[in-house]
Amino acid sequence: MVKATFMFGAGDVRVLDVPDPVLQESTDAIIRVVRGCICGSDLHPYHSMPASGTGRLMGHEAIGVVDSVGADVRTLTPGDFVIVPFAVHDGTCVFCREGFHTSCVHGSWLVGGQSEALRLPWADGTAVKVPGVDETADEALLASLLTLSDVYLTGWHAAHMARVAPGQTVTVIGDGAVGLGAVLSAREMGAERIILMGRHEARTDLGREFGATDVVAERGEEGIARVLELTKGEGSHVVLEAVGHAPAYEQAYGIVRPGGVISRVGVPQFDSPPAGFGQLFGKNAAMTGGPAPVRAYLEDAIGRVLSGAINPGRVFDRVVGIEDVPAGYAAMDARESLKVMVKP
Amino acid sequence: MVKATFMFGAGDVRVLDVPDPVLQESTDAIIRVVRGCICGSDLHPYHSMPASGTGRLMGHEAIGVVDSVGADVRTLTPGDFVIVPFAVHDGTCVFCREGFHTSCVHGSWLVGGQSEALRLPWADGTAVKVPGVDETADEALLASLLTLSDVYLTGWHAAHMARVAPGQTVTVIGDGAVGLGAVLSAREMGAERIILMGRHEARTDLGREFGATDVVAERGEEGIARVLELTKGEGSHVVLEAVGHAPAYEQAYGIVRPGGVISRVGVPQFDSPPAGFGQLFGKNAAMTGGPAPVRAYLEDAIGRVLSGAINPGRVFDRVVGIEDVPAGYAAMDARESLKVMVKP
Repeated sequence: MVKATFMFGAGDVRVLDVPDPVLQESTDAIIRVVRGCICGSDLHPYHSMPASGTGRLMGHEAIGVVDSVGADVRTLTPGDFVIVPFAVHDGTCVFCREGFHTSCVHGSWLVGGQSEALRLPWADGTAVKVPGVDETADEALLASLLTLSDVYLTGWHAAHMARVAPGQTVTVIGDGAVGLGAVLSAREMGAERIILMGRHEARTDLGREFGATDVVAERGEEGIARVLELTKGEGSHVVLEAVGHAPAYEQAYGIVRPGGVISRVGVPQFDSPPAGFGQLFGKNAAMTGGPAPVRAYLEDAIGRVLSGAINPGRVFDRVVGIEDVPAGYAAMDARESLKVMVKP
Repeated sequence: MVKATFMFGAGDVRVLDVPDPVLQESTDAIIRVVRGCICGSDLHPYHSMPASGTGRLMGHEAIGVVDSVGADVRTLTPGDFVIVPFAVHDGTCVFCREGFHTSCVHGSWLVGGQSEALRLPWADGTAVKVPGVDETADEALLASLLTLSDVYLTGWHAAHMARVAPGQTVTVIGDGAVGLGAVLSAREMGAERIILMGRHEARTDLGREFGATDVVAERGEEGIARVLELTKGEGSHVVLEAVGHAPAYEQAYGIVRPGGVISRVGVPQFDSPPAGFGQLFGKNAAMTGGPAPVRAYLEDAIGRVLSGAINPGRVFDRVVGIEDVPAGYAAMDARESLKVMVKP
């Protein structure tokens, strides 16, 4: 038996003993989870999920050790230390080859990351071995590697899709773990000025350490006015939107510069954003973004973490054991915690 | 006195004798119009303009000869043969320098292109001299140069903003003059497959000559299904949307490939296009486009026209004298004509 986290409805998270996960397909692997975590996006069902009799297996971020592999798995061996991205993909379809693994024809979302062990479909296409590292590595390194399963590379994806370039002004909307990853990524890509819009001081302080040159706590029209003031009225070349709610998007088109780009990685909670002549078209502003194909960026990012160039794991400010995952949800929901790590 | 075209309301186009235009600012030039034309976008007010007592001076595309220049004009001399873009701009502000002249801080839209002469503000920043050409050039060359004031380079802008690259599949929605310019541009940029969605056979035939490899006459769900069938279910890397109405945009997100780009140059007749998880975000599809800063592309395009590499002037299928401009509007409105040239 292993302990695993399930959600049974809004606010109802339980850790249950369930049978060990087993190989079902020849392309599967079983991963013993070394560290998992709770995602800001897990708070959406935590707020709104209808009651369920069977519950939903939670957790889509993990690092771990390969326990067993199916007959067709070629790149992983039991004992390998791996990063498991939040999206499962075969790694070979046309969209994976084009770098958009989140549109894989065999794609699904990872589940079981908040458990002691998980079944990973399409193991070769999804997980990546971290050379020279095992679970005895220091906590800071493990934390940074864990962010490569989602949040840091989701921030990276935002900046990558916007083609952030040296000399640009980049504004990041949202001071959650993804927004802070976007700040760090924009710095890595050479942005000259990085404006972080957020109002949780502990988070924006970390944002400054990650590379933010300015912090704007104001929201709405006041926030727009402040960013325009900081940019001589010209606006921001790139806006990285890491929230997903309509007011954040409205800020984005208010501050994007003519010819600029809004890159969205906050899952949009609306279907028809204002995007006509007055918002985007008239000033040739582009809108891009979507679920991050973190697999496309993983080897590069592992190298930067192992070299010490980046330390995205600093977004974790609390660690809980597997039994305390429900308390971790409550802490993130109450904004007492930026991001909670799970140590099974 | 010169003859000039005014619109007094929907369907009410008149050619009037008005005083010669005169220099008002030191940065102005007076241009004698050699050829003007009627734009698809002129049909919007032709359908919906409220009655006006004073009328609106029409025409935003022209080639002509410089008649006189203000004291601060440096790059133009009386007698120069010039192309006049549809947007007026100073050429020196930060947005002009970044290649987005349509967002110039001194910007406006050209008026007077359907006249015998026009006053051009910001002449240095706006008009470009065509070396070695005068008004006695052959009609085909004049026609192609005239398209550089708007329609061909608006199509080019769509493809440029989408970063069309060799090997890609590009779908163009709309078989008007801009759509056909987009086809020609996609071919110039090396697209491997160019699917033209349109159902006016004379136009799509010209589209094939411009480089379309496939024509899809179906619209809506049928049109989407046909494009997906042509692309093995994968969709089009790039969609160039040259219509501006909601059904065209709905086709665009239906056929764009994961990680692909929708580039809009049809002026959007709606403000809140569906652009949530199900339309764009989920598949990392981007939306870009806007009014074309044709000035940014003009020297390059003049070179390609003069060398004979491209012949975008073939979109003109009717020529009218200045007195017959109202009949030209009627012909375009009735779709008896693709694009009408005005020869004052």
